[in-house]
Amino acid sequence: MATTKELYETYKEKMNRVADIKYASAVLQWDQETYLPPKSAAMRGQQIATLSELAHELFTDGKLGDTLGELSQRSDLSEDEKRNTELTLEDYNKNKKYTSAFVRKMSEQVNKTFHSWIEARKENSFSRFEKDLSSLIQLKKEETEILGYVNHPYNSLLNEYEKGCTVELLDKTFSDLLPELKKLLDTISAKPQVDDSFLLQHYPKQQQWDWGMHLIRELHFDFEAGRQDLSEHPFTTNFSSTDVRITTRVNENDLASMTWSCIHETGHALYEQGLPPDQYGLPLGEAASLSMHESQSRLWENNVGRSLSFWKYYFPQLQQYFPKQLGDISIEDFYKGINKVETSFIRTEADELTYHFHVFIRYQLEKNLIDGSIQTKDIPAFWNENYKKYLNVTVPNDKQGCLQDIHWSHGSFGYFPTYSLGSFYAAQFFACARNQAGDLDQQLENGNSHSLLAWLRKNVHGYGRKFTSEELCKNITGKTLDTKDFMTYMLQKYTMIYNL
Amino acid sequence: MATTKELYETYKEKMNRVADIKYASAVLQWDQETYLPPKSAAMRGQQIATLSELAHELFTDGKLGDTLGELSQRSDLSEDEKRNTELTLEDYNKNKKYTSAFVRKMSEQVNKTFHSWIEARKENSFSRFEKDLSSLIQLKKEETEILGYVNHPYNSLLNEYEKGCTVELLDKTFSDLLPELKKLLDTISAKPQVDDSFLLQHYPKQQQWDWGMHLIRELHFDFEAGRQDLSEHPFTTNFSSTDVRITTRVNENDLASMTWSCIHETGHALYEQGLPPDQYGLPLGEAASLSMHESQSRLWENNVGRSLSFWKYYFPQLQQYFPKQLGDISIEDFYKGINKVETSFIRTEADELTYHFHVFIRYQLEKNLIDGSIQTKDIPAFWNENYKKYLNVTVPNDKQGCLQDIHWSHGSFGYFPTYSLGSFYAAQFFACARNQAGDLDQQLENGNSHSLLAWLRKNVHGYGRKFTSEELCKNITGKTLDTKDFMTYMLQKYTMIYNL
Repeated sequence: MATTKELYETYKEKMNRVADIKYASAVLQWDQETYLPPKSAAMRGQQIATLSELAHELFTDGKLGDTLGELSQRSDLSEDEKRNTELTLEDYNKNKKYTSAFVRKMSEQVNKTFHSWIEARKENSFSRFEKDLSSLIQLKKEETEILGYVNHPYNSLLNEYEKGCTVELLDKTFSDLLPELKKLLDTISAKPQVDDSFLLQHYPKQQQWDWGMHLIRELHFDFEAGRQDLSEHPFTTNFSSTDVRITTRVNENDLASMTWSCIHETGHALYEQGLPPDQYGLPLGEAASLSMHESQSRLWENNVGRSLSFWKYYFPQLQQYFPKQLGDISIEDFYKGINKVETSFIRTEADELTYHFHVFIRYQLEKNLIDGSIQTKDIPAFWNENYKKYLNVTVPNDKQGCLQDIHWSHGSFGYFPTYSLGSFYAAQFFACARNQAGDLDQQLENGNSHSLLAWLRKNVHGYGRKFTSEELCKNITGKTLDTKDFMTYMLQKYTMIYNL
Repeated sequence: MATTKELYETYKEKMNRVADIKYASAVLQWDQETYLPPKSAAMRGQQIATLSELAHELFTDGKLGDTLGELSQRSDLSEDEKRNTELTLEDYNKNKKYTSAFVRKMSEQVNKTFHSWIEARKENSFSRFEKDLSSLIQLKKEETEILGYVNHPYNSLLNEYEKGCTVELLDKTFSDLLPELKKLLDTISAKPQVDDSFLLQHYPKQQQWDWGMHLIRELHFDFEAGRQDLSEHPFTTNFSSTDVRITTRVNENDLASMTWSCIHETGHALYEQGLPPDQYGLPLGEAASLSMHESQSRLWENNVGRSLSFWKYYFPQLQQYFPKQLGDISIEDFYKGINKVETSFIRTEADELTYHFHVFIRYQLEKNLIDGSIQTKDIPAFWNENYKKYLNVTVPNDKQGCLQDIHWSHGSFGYFPTYSLGSFYAAQFFACARNQAGDLDQQLENGNSHSLLAWLRKNVHGYGRKFTSEELCKNITGKTLDTKDFMTYMLQKYTMIYNL
């Protein structure tokens, strides 16, 4: 009989093999969104589909199941080994539900749909996207049946990104919070608006790029273990904790777009670079969940990257990059401008308050698409109506409306809600870090984010998937998800900025 | 019983799967040499090794063997289908000789050796490279035993790059040609030297890059189906005929380095872009051999790219990119300068005449390493002695000596001779194209290389591996490899340049 050590080694080897293929596929996808020549789109789709199928075949191989079954009977596993085994067995049983043919079909459909989305955006026309998206949604519906669910089919998709997340939880969270946010929004709207026009001057591409790279480096992103490139839509991906890649896009007429997406993606990247390298390919080498990932990106982007303390240090540097555009702006006006609250069309450029209406609309839309209440063709109408209803804006066209996000073209349904959850966790964690990581405000004013990062590494990054989001939150803050810290943060920030 | 059509489809599907994995591995390797962050070198090595091993497992799967066995019995295959089947069966039987463990070991050792080479170059020290290279050579020796050989173990490695190529053939070719080349070199050496110092001025990186990109585009490289990036050592790779990638490096103090490596790599790339896309993953979708590949790169680099006709059209454009450096140079002096014959240390920068001594030295060295006549530690001494003997130069250090080429770090033993063979084929083909593709000199003077490319597409590119180099050469020129055209070309060129 194999010793536990031998068994665990066998398990690790098999998992490393699966990880190598998954990460190879991630390299091909990264390349697809950064450097791929256009004529090879279809071929690349096929190559990625083959790798997906293969990774699935290897991960659902009966021999891995046997190894896991045996391992889970052993009593001499360390705590971490036990947790890896449990989580892998869970993943294994879930993956066994999918056939290889389904995995391949999904991968190929995602590829087609992604390229349709690119074209549809160019043509500014949802109808160019509709057919492929509809086929993809049909596959997602099949997926809910394959996975099984309680109460609502969308729960099974939510669970993919955020273990234990449900329609019930989200409905309650949003219905508690949105009225409060609406009230705050109305109060702000009655006050004189702040000026952010200085952000919308001409900022040359190369200088923005240099500034972004500087900022990322300052936030301790390790360029020896990662890089930044340009892509249509900013994202972070990783092929190991020593190869984490972020991308950005530059809008020459909007400094905000690149600046805060650099900080946001760096938040994601720091999490990936902080995962334990010796757990490569195993659950404890992966991020806990998407909302936990988003808690990191939103914490850096907003709680840090839109704070007065942070900019007291970095604004003079930014002024040196753009003396002509920002030389005459005071730090106070800069701080107010970058926190301007204003209803708008584009989620990624929304302020911290109205952001959650953007997410809520997508959440409603997905829930209705998955349970069949509405059809793919109804998306633009539903979208535009709800933007009118919640944000009181008239969406000018599909490109600035329902075509703005990459997610659906990737088959990511159930993903958006994690953006809001992440923001709420971020506020809860940041409130806690203020008590535990020294005088954060003073540190940030000195351009020092070392102890905040160390606190996150210790409390979040280093654990991988060892704990769920809920457990992590409880371990760190003593309670589960609670939007109170988020509302306190909102009120404090905007009371000062808008003299409420 | 399956119909022939069904059987062939099964075969194609299996081959596509293998190709998808091989090309995925090629993407990871391309990324490794262009964009990989340094800390992930080891992890990337593991990922590439897993893909190699997997591709090998799938390609040597007994079911593919059965399909091939059945297919080769069928009499209703088309000519191309029959050829694909034959060649794949040949490859299959050869690959069956390797165990997966050996393939993985080789891939991992190649990765380690590649990174040692990078470090050794930085440190300018062969000894940093020796241990890993020695292990790799040991594996190559094992490989000769696995593959089997007649007469000389090196023959089995030569055969990997150039089917049918042997020590006997190369010894004869070189011993016929080198004395003639030596005689020509001596005659030239007795004449006044031409001046190429204008090439060695300061040429800023960005302008060189722009110029290189322009030139590549002019030569009909399809940027919708490929790209160019920077790397330590220029190379061409492909992930399908619609995704062909070339790389270059820029030396700010030498215009020649980038210019002719761009043309050289474009020659390779045009071949890959001209392979039939419907044969993806099958032998008829691959290049015929390495010498055939090199015939394309050398034809464009030298027969076209160092001809007076070509530069009559492009030199005025080059002058516009670099007016300060080249404004006062005449086309005649430029033409002479770029064809200067001078013994030197670096193969990739050698003139067309002395180039073959560089190859010959490497060929001798490899042959001796593989049959055990010399040891890895003896490489620098052997190298330096032979550079003295054949080229009468004193190699100043390992970086400019035996560390200059990437090939051994990739495990490519038996590759170098194809560079000379390629040059000889190029001269033979170009002489033939002069008769068949219209007035080439006049066309090149008009900046038109369309009909030459069309001629190559028709006679070489479109066939893939359907014919061997020898067969292709015979089909095109009516005879097999013959260095006479090469010598004629050498004599004509240098008689004019050096007033012989």
